[in-house]
Amino acid sequence: MLSDIEIAQAAEMKPITEIAAKLGLQGEDVIPYGHYKAKLNHKLAKADKPEGKLILVTAISPTPAGEGKTTTSVGLADAMNALGKKTMLCLREPSLGPVFGIKGGAAGGGYAQVVPMEDINLHFTGDIHAIGAANNLLAAMIDNSIQQGNPLNIDPRRITWKRCMDMNDRQLRFIVDGLGGKVNGTPREDGFDITVASEVMAVFCLATDLEDLKARLSRIVCAYTYDGQPVTAGQIGAAGAMTALLKDALDPNLVQTLEHNPAIIHGGPFANIAHGCNSAIATRLSLKLADYVVTEAGFGADLGAEKFLDIKCRYAGLHPAAVVLVATVRALKSHGGVAKPDLGKPNAEAVRAGSVNLARHIENLQGFGLPVCVAINAFPTDTAEEMDVIYDVCNKAGVPCALSEVFAKGGEGGKALAETVLSILDDGAEVQYTYELDAPLTDKIEAVATKIYRAGRVSYTAAAKKTLDELTALGYGKLPVCIAKTQYSFSDNAKLTGAPEGHTLNVREVRLSAGAGFVVVVCGSIMTMPGLPKHPAAMDIDVDVHGKITGLF
Amino acid sequence: MLSDIEIAQAAEMKPITEIAAKLGLQGEDVIPYGHYKAKLNHKLAKADKPEGKLILVTAISPTPAGEGKTTTSVGLADAMNALGKKTMLCLREPSLGPVFGIKGGAAGGGYAQVVPMEDINLHFTGDIHAIGAANNLLAAMIDNSIQQGNPLNIDPRRITWKRCMDMNDRQLRFIVDGLGGKVNGTPREDGFDITVASEVMAVFCLATDLEDLKARLSRIVCAYTYDGQPVTAGQIGAAGAMTALLKDALDPNLVQTLEHNPAIIHGGPFANIAHGCNSAIATRLSLKLADYVVTEAGFGADLGAEKFLDIKCRYAGLHPAAVVLVATVRALKSHGGVAKPDLGKPNAEAVRAGSVNLARHIENLQGFGLPVCVAINAFPTDTAEEMDVIYDVCNKAGVPCALSEVFAKGGEGGKALAETVLSILDDGAEVQYTYELDAPLTDKIEAVATKIYRAGRVSYTAAAKKTLDELTALGYGKLPVCIAKTQYSFSDNAKLTGAPEGHTLNVREVRLSAGAGFVVVVCGSIMTMPGLPKHPAAMDIDVDVHGKITGLF
Repeated sequence: MLSDIEIAQAAEMKPITEIAAKLGLQGEDVIPYGHYKAKLNHKLAKADKPEGKLILVTAISPTPAGEGKTTTSVGLADAMNALGKKTMLCLREPSLGPVFGIKGGAAGGGYAQVVPMEDINLHFTGDIHAIGAANNLLAAMIDNSIQQGNPLNIDPRRITWKRCMDMNDRQLRFIVDGLGGKVNGTPREDGFDITVASEVMAVFCLATDLEDLKARLSRIVCAYTYDGQPVTAGQIGAAGAMTALLKDALDPNLVQTLEHNPAIIHGGPFANIAHGCNSAIATRLSLKLADYVVTEAGFGADLGAEKFLDIKCRYAGLHPAAVVLVATVRALKSHGGVAKPDLGKPNAEAVRAGSVNLARHIENLQGFGLPVCVAINAFPTDTAEEMDVIYDVCNKAGVPCALSEVFAKGGEGGKALAETVLSILDDGAEVQYTYELDAPLTDKIEAVATKIYRAGRVSYTAAAKKTLDELTALGYGKLPVCIAKTQYSFSDNAKLTGAPEGHTLNVREVRLSAGAGFVVVVCGSIMTMPGLPKHPAAMDIDVDVHGKITGLF
Repeated sequence: MLSDIEIAQAAEMKPITEIAAKLGLQGEDVIPYGHYKAKLNHKLAKADKPEGKLILVTAISPTPAGEGKTTTSVGLADAMNALGKKTMLCLREPSLGPVFGIKGGAAGGGYAQVVPMEDINLHFTGDIHAIGAANNLLAAMIDNSIQQGNPLNIDPRRITWKRCMDMNDRQLRFIVDGLGGKVNGTPREDGFDITVASEVMAVFCLATDLEDLKARLSRIVCAYTYDGQPVTAGQIGAAGAMTALLKDALDPNLVQTLEHNPAIIHGGPFANIAHGCNSAIATRLSLKLADYVVTEAGFGADLGAEKFLDIKCRYAGLHPAAVVLVATVRALKSHGGVAKPDLGKPNAEAVRAGSVNLARHIENLQGFGLPVCVAINAFPTDTAEEMDVIYDVCNKAGVPCALSEVFAKGGEGGKALAETVLSILDDGAEVQYTYELDAPLTDKIEAVATKIYRAGRVSYTAAAKKTLDELTALGYGKLPVCIAKTQYSFSDNAKLTGAPEGHTLNVREVRLSAGAGFVVVVCGSIMTMPGLPKHPAAMDIDVDVHGKITGLF
């Protein structure tokens, strides 16, 4: 089989104006970026039109084996369209940093991809750079305010705002800046995050329009004064210019699948310290333009789907009509204790052992009051006996299950899944949130810990407890909680695969994302600036004299 | 009179496809970025077609009064077109950082502007972000190479490659990074430059095609080994991926003037530590598409024009047919010793005293063997007596002089200047370079110092002398020199306005830009990361609910 980039480059794309025309869009609403990408006027999200049905794609707890959530989403959208259902796809934008590291791109795989693959993975329409610039403008203005007499009385030891860069650069994790004497700033401890971990990204993805974007940016708490009062981006005077930097980025990006169906790729916040799904504007706009919208949430369902529902859907007033839970035989084997080199060997026993992870996620999603089905993302090494184990688990849980062969066959390989999804759709399903916003922050943390993670108890470091008390006193107690923990386990211990319960959730640190509108609860150590591996993917990326890129995967 | 942004926003732009069609371009050669910006296939620069005549716009030594070089360039191009001459404009792209600081935008002024002004000043088509990403990828890969066992034997104390950001952020000038223990890098002294000061920008602007771009990137010397050998970006394995990041950026950007004439805006390296003019590809491409091309060089003629001729024209094989030297009555008064608040008061004596600066620049440009004319960029406060002084100086130097009223009147106000330029054009003029490439580095420095700056002698710090010897020993002695000194004086002392001579040029430091292909000779202290002022322009920038930007200037 050809590689992803070979398949993507062999594709004959249609002009993006043609894809937009299929959605009934033209003229000033379609802002071309080259011949195969366009931005769509974000105001279309506010059109007075009926909305389509929203389908969320999520997954079991990730393993080194890979689950293929994006691939399944792309293939499902293609299959729905093949069945004559007017369907749009809504995905996150890949971050540039990991493209050069080990992760590669994030535009689907095999015959279920969005194109132009190279563009989507490299700069795309510049949105992430715009987010970085807005983040770094605020950072420069904070330090400049201190430099120019510190009228806001900012405590340089309590600047919570970091600079960012869309690069995997461990060297920037912990720095001391402002060195070199009086004219070159105030020496202080500082550090960089990767751009997608910036609160600006989270703000951007939850904003409903330009005005809301500016209001949220304005509320960002970026530092504290010497007497402990929060300092906002609004007080720094940065919100207007930050919004100006993000104005064009706010328009969602239209591309196409290999089968020429419309796909929106817009926004991509981290799924641990942020909520991990594409922009609310993109989802809303897609619902106005199509009868069905397939979208995905980051990591496993305990992190991505929980935040999609408790944060994004609640803020944006979205109501998914169905949830697709992606699993693979290989990944369940991994949860059943099989090491990576042995994942290709038949082992129904291990699939059975690992399927507790699948069953737990199904149960959790059912708890949200939504119809659920399971998609088995097929691999050539899967055996009938192994797949039977999964069918059996789904039967017992009372949810339908379908084989998805979209990687090898494109939309055609997703028809069974599409029919299954269509059979369970419930437009009237009301999301049962994990907690009410009115509850105290600790109650909200405990609700997620016990209902979703099945922890026995929650422990807090003294620092975390203190911050929770301070944030409550400052009036941030009614915000939802965004729990950052490892994606590999229901617990905060990456090694506890399967379906652990009764464990302790250890809250190490609490951070405020006042602009995005949530309190980040950090459990364990969360890396917000990745590093490059021994042989970075960048070393194999090249361009020939005709401009053809190779080595991207 | 309306402000620049008010004039720009009131303009009725034509669709960029229409502007491209005027140049005979359509289809895959025109890559739209929105409705009013497009990239043009850089391969058009290699078309087998006759080339137009190149007109260089430069200026007297800058003063706080402003000269209006870009405004004059825009107005001249509009006037040439109004006279029926098929003319294109070729400008540098403004850097984002200064837009938020004190400088404001850089898209011309009054009725001689390029539009869309907000887009050009904010991100534009993303080229500068792409350059930043390429710069920072190399930086991350250097430190990662050390982290992963240091196979190239890089001395962490001798990494010459800095990270960059398109922001005015003094806090990042001097930092220590790699803190936090073994897994977070190697602690070392480091710092950030503003993106336009990156050598990648200089490389980008001198490259002739993708292949040459990759070859130049590959030659960048970014560090030295423990035994003093240069380490290149090619050895790091970064050149392919850097080129991939720059692939789209290499296509020049097409916009329009307020009078709907085609303007290319592409690349913008510093005019001190780099050569300070738009990309060679943009200039060449424009020469293929139009009969006349108006372009500008950075700062005053001693810096910008000298580098344009000795570096860019020499590398790219370009032959200007005329040089326009921009002066203002106010700026000459400033050279004549008048303080900024008094520049509006009539003072022909001061103009006479300051005109030595103008006369010196004329003489220098004549020394290059090129036909020269002077443009007086008109201000409402100018008196006839003051202007007569300038005419008189030009007469004595034997060069024609024309009043340019393009700020107030657009192309119509530039017709006299356009006719003057047309009257002096000499397509057969051969550039007399200031030095031959074969000469030793010190001879080249001394040639610029004595012929252009009129210094009496050149002094070198021990470190500078040592580096010159090392670079010569390493085989970099045949490169041209790029002298970085203050733009405010012919000397390296900003306070010596007018036309100093016999001074000493103090060479403090020497840096290698092996990819760009020049040796940077630093005289005095050169700031490559600006800071924000007490009241940053960013504080006044805003966007309304309709997406209209205000406060940009």
